[in-house]
Amino acid sequence: MINHANAQNIKNWLEAINQFNSTLEFGTTRVLFTPSEIAAREYVKNEMLKLGMNVREDAIGNIFATYEGQDTSLPAVWTGSHIDTVLNAGMFDGMAGVVGGMEAVRLIKESGQRPKRSIEVIVYTSEEPTRFGLSCLGSRAMAGKLSLEDAKNLKDNDGNTFAEVLKSLEYNPVEFKNIPISKGSVFGAVELHIEQNGLLEENGLPVGIVKAICAPTNYSVEVYGCQSHAGGTSMDARRDAFTASCEVSLSLERLAKESESEYTTATIGRVEVVPNAVNVIPGTVKFSIDIRDIDFESKNILLNKLLKEISEIEQKRGVNITLIPENHDRPIRCDEKIVEVIRQSCENQGIAYQVMISGAYHDSLFVGEFAPVAMIFVPSKNGISHSPEEWTDYEDIAVGVDALAETLLTLANTTDE
Amino acid sequence: MINHANAQNIKNWLEAINQFNSTLEFGTTRVLFTPSEIAAREYVKNEMLKLGMNVREDAIGNIFATYEGQDTSLPAVWTGSHIDTVLNAGMFDGMAGVVGGMEAVRLIKESGQRPKRSIEVIVYTSEEPTRFGLSCLGSRAMAGKLSLEDAKNLKDNDGNTFAEVLKSLEYNPVEFKNIPISKGSVFGAVELHIEQNGLLEENGLPVGIVKAICAPTNYSVEVYGCQSHAGGTSMDARRDAFTASCEVSLSLERLAKESESEYTTATIGRVEVVPNAVNVIPGTVKFSIDIRDIDFESKNILLNKLLKEISEIEQKRGVNITLIPENHDRPIRCDEKIVEVIRQSCENQGIAYQVMISGAYHDSLFVGEFAPVAMIFVPSKNGISHSPEEWTDYEDIAVGVDALAETLLTLANTTDE
Repeated sequence: MINHANAQNIKNWLEAINQFNSTLEFGTTRVLFTPSEIAAREYVKNEMLKLGMNVREDAIGNIFATYEGQDTSLPAVWTGSHIDTVLNAGMFDGMAGVVGGMEAVRLIKESGQRPKRSIEVIVYTSEEPTRFGLSCLGSRAMAGKLSLEDAKNLKDNDGNTFAEVLKSLEYNPVEFKNIPISKGSVFGAVELHIEQNGLLEENGLPVGIVKAICAPTNYSVEVYGCQSHAGGTSMDARRDAFTASCEVSLSLERLAKESESEYTTATIGRVEVVPNAVNVIPGTVKFSIDIRDIDFESKNILLNKLLKEISEIEQKRGVNITLIPENHDRPIRCDEKIVEVIRQSCENQGIAYQVMISGAYHDSLFVGEFAPVAMIFVPSKNGISHSPEEWTDYEDIAVGVDALAETLLTLANTTDE
Repeated sequence: MINHANAQNIKNWLEAINQFNSTLEFGTTRVLFTPSEIAAREYVKNEMLKLGMNVREDAIGNIFATYEGQDTSLPAVWTGSHIDTVLNAGMFDGMAGVVGGMEAVRLIKESGQRPKRSIEVIVYTSEEPTRFGLSCLGSRAMAGKLSLEDAKNLKDNDGNTFAEVLKSLEYNPVEFKNIPISKGSVFGAVELHIEQNGLLEENGLPVGIVKAICAPTNYSVEVYGCQSHAGGTSMDARRDAFTASCEVSLSLERLAKESESEYTTATIGRVEVVPNAVNVIPGTVKFSIDIRDIDFESKNILLNKLLKEISEIEQKRGVNITLIPENHDRPIRCDEKIVEVIRQSCENQGIAYQVMISGAYHDSLFVGEFAPVAMIFVPSKNGISHSPEEWTDYEDIAVGVDALAETLLTLANTTDE
């Protein structure tokens, strides 16, 4: 009924988007509302128009491209992902889901079918926290968890607030209140994404069906020791904020490895040492903690153990360690019915798959607050992402799109409930 | 014979120098040949002229202020220190020795005595490595260990070479070859400095007499793991460059504490994490290692142990760790005769003292290559330096200057050898 996805189409779109990149010499960097990101938005919207879709944006820059169904009064079926990146990232994380959604719609149109429900391809604003330090700005706002007030308080490194940036780009702050999506107004949402882990590759499978999405807990940690001279201060007299931080880091790593949950990760990704000079014992170290789990309670257990060990490190080393909570999000379970539709689509097409969890979180985590969601994963080479080495073969994405297209069509024709 | 040093004079000079500061809101920052450092040089030279001294500079900006003795053909007696700082430092490290030398000369002049040998107060160029990453530029060049070629290769963060900066300030590169001081042309050098450790304060003593100066060994370390997604990559699949660096850091700390030498320190002061984002496992970490010891062989033993542990960390964590040697300097023993003159000066004046080592290195380390040297330490509050909290009471500096002045006078009148 539906043709196979065209890997060449997917390649062309992804390579074209990848030209909008502020670090062409080292991976892909496309930060929210920088010139390269704005240009990528224009390109994607234009390609969506060329597919015959209606395109609109909301007040936070979420892009909605609609392939209208027979009855536009019915709740639509969503797919899509994001096109912003972290610094020096790859060309697939997010973009594969946007391009995959576009290709799925193209295939459905090509098949000559007009489903009962509309299908919308969404480009969510700033899934990555690169610019404003908070992830999933667009989908978070859709879920009613990011207000205009919040946008006024989010600042980038240059001191610009998110609200100011939106206004400067002529997004209307008065419309901000219309961003949240009410429950029931979306029939279901399926996001295609690269796996960002190596399981599919290891198991030689083209598709993962996501049954649950890990949620992050983030802290900003500040360690205060005593800045002093590297040569003058004997080892016993030191209150070194960096070695204390190293101990926290290794504690955190051990606790995550020891966790009894099915999936726990813990990462220190951002580190700032003050004054950061060769011959000065660091007086202050600031770093980020990122903990993810499929199980909310496991995160709490890990956090309690960590706090206890941090307190011991404080005692032993004469430093003060402050943890500032950033977010403590709840993991979600995907919608069992949608998972079943994806599974059936794979079975129908002879696509091998495994049901798995997502260690990374995605816009679907927030979309899941107002709509039934599930995700389709395609393999990541060596499990690497957020890196110039991130890679997924275009043919692998095409297989994922085959599953996605049938899933979207099935959902869009489902009205008996 | 000589009056006591005037703490108010010392305070006035130090406070005046401290006005030349690019971070007035947080400690003292006076980086080589920045406007504030150049202004401080002008101020100090002018104060030296007001003391009736002859002032000249060499081709690297070392300042020489001479109080002429009866026989200017005799090798002179030196004192002095530096006026540049690390970032967000204090107002004593270096400056106390320059101001202390000026006050000592003032006291000797005031006493109406003209010693046989000339006394010179030196301001050494860039003792701190803040701008060009290498310490003791002025005294290193005096010791013949920094050539014009070297100066052409040293770059600051803006890409300017040290040679270019010197030329732009009208120091004559042709004169660079005249910077080295030949052995025998300096009778002895005594540097007054803050202790930068807490021993004098702990022991309630106003003066330390330095019998040996630790020397640094520095490495730039680069740790290469695998940059990947913080959520997507399970704990077992990680090759995290930061946790590997933390393990190196704690190994280094332990080895320094276990060292059998009288005095060993090890510090990681500068750390750079790439890409330094909350949700990305660090792929690369670069950091500095600074090891100091009074005993050269102990440093070598520690380094060998460290290399072995680093190799184990590499194996265990699947990372590559590269150590780039920066310098591997030899500690020096101070001149026993000068140490004895300082001791006698203290005894004569009833100044309590202890003989000690210097964990920090100083220009004296390089001056020691061509002249007999020793140092006088004054207490550091809480042992803190290279920090806005660095403090030494002006009265404590004045006591050190009392010891210095008599020492300089004694040395300058010593001709029977």
